Amino acid sequence: MKIARFASPDEDPRFGVVDGDDLVVLAGDPMYAGYETTGERVPMSGVKILAPVIPRSKVVGIGLNYYDHADEMGQEAPEFPVVFLKPNTTVIGPGDAIQLPPVEGQVDLEGELAIVIGSIAKKVRPEDYADVVFGYTIANDVTARTVQQSDGQWTRAKSYDTFCPIGPYIETELDWTDVTIQSRVDGELLQRETTQHMIHKIPDLVAYVSQIFTLLPGDIILTGTPAGVGPFTAGQTVEISIDGLGSLINPVRNRD
Amino acid sequence: MKIARFASPDEDPRFGVVDGDDLVVLAGDPMYAGYETTGERVPMSGVKILAPVIPRSKVVGIGLNYYDHADEMGQEAPEFPVVFLKPNTTVIGPGDAIQLPPVEGQVDLEGELAIVIGSIAKKVRPEDYADVVFGYTIANDVTARTVQQSDGQWTRAKSYDTFCPIGPYIETELDWTDVTIQSRVDGELLQRETTQHMIHKIPDLVAYVSQIFTLLPGDIILTGTPAGVGPFTAGQTVEISIDGLGSLINPVRNRD
Repeated sequence: MKIARFASPDEDPRFGVVDGDDLVVLAGDPMYAGYETTGERVPMSGVKILAPVIPRSKVVGIGLNYYDHADEMGQEAPEFPVVFLKPNTTVIGPGDAIQLPPVEGQVDLEGELAIVIGSIAKKVRPEDYADVVFGYTIANDVTARTVQQSDGQWTRAKSYDTFCPIGPYIETELDWTDVTIQSRVDGELLQRETTQHMIHKIPDLVAYVSQIFTLLPGDIILTGTPAGVGPFTAGQTVEISIDGLGSLINPVRNRD
Repeated sequence: MKIARFASPDEDPRFGVVDGDDLVVLAGDPMYAGYETTGERVPMSGVKILAPVIPRSKVVGIGLNYYDHADEMGQEAPEFPVVFLKPNTTVIGPGDAIQLPPVEGQVDLEGELAIVIGSIAKKVRPEDYADVVFGYTIANDVTARTVQQSDGQWTRAKSYDTFCPIGPYIETELDWTDVTIQSRVDGELLQRETTQHMIHKIPDLVAYVSQIFTLLPGDIILTGTPAGVGPFTAGQTVEISIDGLGSLINPVRNRD
């Protein structure tokens, strides 16, 4: 099932189940209120699709989780997942502009499969990971690469407002074991890789991070990016696609 | 004015103004609802004092912000503030137990002056910093030191549940320019330093981080720890004191 969050003109955000070109409107947030519908259907063409979730606690990032990306960064593939955080103020939805801050050097896309957590989760065993996953969506872990390299710590480079586009919807039933991630800038292909080549797989990632901190409903785990990360600039359009999850498309402009 | 968040037995958290040994109960969260009182007074001895705020977005940490601490870590004092994040799931209140996770090596206290943000804040000029500050409190930026050193990235070491005790209250009128931070383990003094020796001062910290991301009401900025950081173990009690802000005391135990 595909769950979108949307806004009709002059209305508060609501949730809907994607059904062809329509959304079947849900009575509440399905993460808390289940799948009761209001009976209303709205055409997707008449609404704005929003980020499918705004985490109230954490966007958890995983670094260097594909061998070929670790290699292009000149790093060894890590024995344990490398964990970082992006604040929830980075999150934007499909079609929203990625805003480039006035920092030196290049800003890169990083196309990633994102896990959306559905329940309070501590010390999850790898074999139980699916119990705490609400679904999956696409994320772009936008990174100010030059800042990342000069700071050493990755936080600033990954935390600028608008640096975490997610969407367009959450798929609750994805088989994540072998889906292809593709990233494009103005149509030019930069990344094309299957999740088969993740180093630390999703059950182990959920187990690892839930040993550190309690995961809350709506938290997101970005599962790492494959090789091919590359820069974009104001005026371009960035697109990340994943089989079964659609395409996440964001224009780029300079920050106000 | 000193603002505490507290729970009477079997009641939801409320806010109060500290008046001697009593709390003058407020009608709502003063960050949003102002200082209207309910007319009720409760003795502090009869309630549990809670973390004075649970950030809905960010606990921002600043690394290496005292010369003598940078020195003891074997690092150069940085030209710009080193920024990291702790998730809101790290926050606990006075008297709550710091829970040691089953990780290798030592876990250290880091006594710090914490800024509590009071309004939505972007690109604040240093001279305007006070407009966006709600007040100040004490924080302990608990750090799994051995993990920090082996990971390189600091996030995991600083993000375990319970690793950010804050409190006991928020002082809205602190002159932060020269207050002394003292940290003790079972009464033994580890840190004693004045905020005069901060490298990047509070106006510059608020300006710097609000250039990266939008600050939201309730966000916290930890302003860095002076020299003397040191380890504690289960069964001990950790106390951080700051002039004008009282003492933040937390017992330590192993995680369940």
